[in-house]
Amino acid sequence: MYLSKIKITLRKSILDPQGKAVEHSIQSLGYGNIKDTRIGKFVELKIDAASDKEAGRITDEICSKLLANPVMEDYDFEVTKLNGVK
Amino acid sequence: MYLSKIKITLRKSILDPQGKAVEHSIQSLGYGNIKDTRIGKFVELKIDAASDKEAGRITDEICSKLLANPVMEDYDFEVTKLNGVK
Repeated sequence: MYLSKIKITLRKSILDPQGKAVEHSIQSLGYGNIKDTRIGKFVELKIDAASDKEAGRITDEICSKLLANPVMEDYDFEVTKLNGVK
Repeated sequence: MYLSKIKITLRKSILDPQGKAVEHSIQSLGYGNIKDTRIGKFVELKIDAASDKEAGRITDEICSKLLANPVMEDYDFEVTKLNGVK
């Protein structure tokens, strides 16, 4: 069993109004030294795969087919083996 | 300048209907070997701080005060130094 941790972020060229709103809130709390806040999604899933290579391939397919919008978003993931879990 | 990458996840004991919906979609694409899908938030922000320790402290404060709901969510972050960026 493998655990995939996936980060999905808006591409740098895409405006992120949600991030801007959060940044303004942070600054209104008194943290003036914050900038470039961007909000993305974080997805965790467990995969029953034969190897970490296969788990990586499956994660990549799921990201490109379903989780990320290839026009607007980039994704990045890491796969770790879960020891002792079948 | 430091870059904080923050992952905010629902606590394990909290049901995640969004994750369940995504899991069903993944399975209907033919990936039957996926389970325990959980959806969280991913936040990136840049901090103008004197040290990585200070950047970590500020990130932790922002997470607990604003970004994460301490009743339902856990957070985890990593701080990296951005070289050559003031």
